[in-house]
Amino acid sequence: MKRPVGELKNLAASICRVGGIPVADAEMIADVLVTTDMRGIHSHGVVRLARYLDCIRAGGIKPAAEPVTLCESANSIMASANGGLGIPAAMKTMKRLLEKAEDSAISIATLNHSDHYGAAGHYAMMAAERGFVGFSMSNTCPLIAPTGGRAAAIGNNPFAYAAPGKKHRAVLFDVCMSKVAAGKLVIAAEAGKKIPTDWILTKDGKPTDDPDEIWHDAVMLPFAEHKGYGFATLVEAMTGVLAMSGMMSGVHSWNTQPGRDADTGHCFIVVNPAFFGGKDAFKERIDAMIDELKRCPTVDGVKEVLYPGELEWRRETAALTEGVELPEASEKELARAAEITGLKG
Amino acid sequence: MKRPVGELKNLAASICRVGGIPVADAEMIADVLVTTDMRGIHSHGVVRLARYLDCIRAGGIKPAAEPVTLCESANSIMASANGGLGIPAAMKTMKRLLEKAEDSAISIATLNHSDHYGAAGHYAMMAAERGFVGFSMSNTCPLIAPTGGRAAAIGNNPFAYAAPGKKHRAVLFDVCMSKVAAGKLVIAAEAGKKIPTDWILTKDGKPTDDPDEIWHDAVMLPFAEHKGYGFATLVEAMTGVLAMSGMMSGVHSWNTQPGRDADTGHCFIVVNPAFFGGKDAFKERIDAMIDELKRCPTVDGVKEVLYPGELEWRRETAALTEGVELPEASEKELARAAEITGLKG
Repeated sequence: MKRPVGELKNLAASICRVGGIPVADAEMIADVLVTTDMRGIHSHGVVRLARYLDCIRAGGIKPAAEPVTLCESANSIMASANGGLGIPAAMKTMKRLLEKAEDSAISIATLNHSDHYGAAGHYAMMAAERGFVGFSMSNTCPLIAPTGGRAAAIGNNPFAYAAPGKKHRAVLFDVCMSKVAAGKLVIAAEAGKKIPTDWILTKDGKPTDDPDEIWHDAVMLPFAEHKGYGFATLVEAMTGVLAMSGMMSGVHSWNTQPGRDADTGHCFIVVNPAFFGGKDAFKERIDAMIDELKRCPTVDGVKEVLYPGELEWRRETAALTEGVELPEASEKELARAAEITGLKG
Repeated sequence: MKRPVGELKNLAASICRVGGIPVADAEMIADVLVTTDMRGIHSHGVVRLARYLDCIRAGGIKPAAEPVTLCESANSIMASANGGLGIPAAMKTMKRLLEKAEDSAISIATLNHSDHYGAAGHYAMMAAERGFVGFSMSNTCPLIAPTGGRAAAIGNNPFAYAAPGKKHRAVLFDVCMSKVAAGKLVIAAEAGKKIPTDWILTKDGKPTDDPDEIWHDAVMLPFAEHKGYGFATLVEAMTGVLAMSGMMSGVHSWNTQPGRDADTGHCFIVVNPAFFGGKDAFKERIDAMIDELKRCPTVDGVKEVLYPGELEWRRETAALTEGVELPEASEKELARAAEITGLKG
C-alpha cells in the first residue's frame, strides 16, 4: 500500500499531538520522519514514532521541553534540548544557526541533553537548501567496538554533510560508523545466511559468520577497521566533548528511564560560500563535480555512477506524486503508535 | 641507521635551500617532513623531498612563491599558494588562521593553486597544540574510482582532525579515502602475495587479486564502498569546489609540467572550545573520552585499545631521544635529493 505524503504527515503529526507533543513540534517531527521515508531511509522514518512515544510515556523524554541557549556568539550557539525530543530541538537550533550563517564564513551550534534526532542528513540539507554547506552529527549510546576492543565502547555516531548544486539538487552523504546497519544483520538472520566475519564480534569478542549472534549481545565493528573508529571519535569529540553532553557510556539515547538524562549530543556546522567566491559559483562548481562523476565509465553490470544523495532525490520526487510505500516494520510500528494514542493508523 | 632528529632536519633544510627554496620555507618543509617521519608516517616524510625538487627543477612548482589572500573576513581566509609549494603555503595560512581562531567559535581557511602539502594531520595538530580542534583536508589528482565506476575519477583526498587532551597529548586522525595505501600493494606485489578483490580494479574495470596490476594502470577502490567515496566528495566540495582550486581531473599534484597549474586545493577549519565551556574543560573531557576507550576490554591477541594518534606520539617521543630509523625507500630518495643538490646525504 502506497500512502500519500500529505496523509502520512497528517497521521504522524496527529499521533505526536495526541502523544503530548506541542502542535508546532509535532508537525516538525512528522515532516522530518516522513521526508526521510520519502528518501527511502525507512530505518529513520515513521518506524521511530512508537519508540518516541514509549520514551515519553515512560517519562524518559519531556514532550514539551523547549531548548535553552547556554552560550552564544555572532557565529555560534551552545544550547540544551532540556531533556526534550531531539528533532524539534535540532530543527529550532538549526533554524537559528542558519540566520547567523548569512553573516559569517562558518558557523557552529551544539545541543546537549537531547535524544535521538532522526536522520542526521536532514539538518545538513536544511543548510544546503539555503545555499550553504551543512554538517550534522550526533553521538549515540555505545554500540561499536574500537579497533582491537571487544566491547561496545563508542556510539555508532552518525555524520552527514550536504552541499547544494544548481542543476543537481545537492550532494547529501549520511553515514554511521558501523560496518553494516543493524537492519542488514536482521535480514541475514531471517534469511538464514552467513555474514562476513568483519561485521560483528560475539559477546565474548570472537569473530563470527552467524548473524543470529545479534540476539546474543554481539558487538558491531566499525567500517574499514580503524577508519570507522577514527570517524566515531571525531563525532564524539564534536558532540559529547564539545557540546558537553553525555559521552560514551554517559549517553542513553531512546531513554525510557524517568529521572535519567538521555543526554545525547549533536553538532551542526554551516559554511557560507558567499565568503569564497559566491553562492552561485559554488553551486555551479558542485554541478561540475557531479557531472564529472557521472561521466565516469562503469564496471560491468552497473548502469551509471551515482553521486551521494542521487538515489534519495529520485525516491523523494517519486514519492511526491506516487506516495510512500512503507516496509512492513514501519507499518507495524505506525500501527502501534496509532494504537498507543487511540488513533486509526 | 638511526638519524638524530636535529641532523635530519638540518640536512632536509639544506637540501631545500640549495634547491632554491627560501630559508624560512626550507625550515618549515624540513620540520613538517621530519616530524612526519618521527611519527612513523614515512610515506609522507623526507621520502617526498626529491620529488619536490623534481617538480621545482622541471618548472612545475615555483620554489619562492608567496601565498596571496584573495578574500578575508573576521573568521575566514581564502588564499592562493600562487603556484608554490604546498607545505609553506599551508603553514603560513594556518598560522594566520590560528590568530583569527582565538576570537571566533569557528574559523576556516582555503588555499588554491597549491601542490602536495605533506601529511594532512600536521596542520590539524597545529590547531590542537593551541587548544583548538583542527580539521585539515586536501584534494589530489584523480586516484580512486567512485562506487560503480571503473576509472580514477576523484582524488584520494586526505582528511585529518585533531583534538587536544591535557593528560593525553591529543587525538589525531588522518586518513585517505582508498581501501589501502599504494605502499601496501607494492609490498604485496614484492612478496608475490594475492590481495583481497576489493582493493583495486584492473584498468578494464575487473576485480583482481593480483597486486602486480598496479603496474598496469589499476584503479584504487574507496574504503567501505560508498562510504570512502562519500568522504572523498566531502573533501572535494571543501577544497576543489569551495577553495576554487582545480577539481577532479583539473588537479595536477606533483606537477612537473611548466606552464601547467598543479592547482591543488586545501581547506582548514578551527573550532575554539572557549565558546563551548572553555579550553580546559574541553581538554579534560578529551582525556575522559580517551580513558574510557583505553578501558575497553580487548580481543584475543591485542594488548590494549589505542586511541587515534597514540602510536604516533609514542614513536615521536622515542625518535626525540633515539633518532629516526628511515625505511630503505626514504633513505634512497633522501640520497637522490642530496645528489640533485650536490649535498652529502
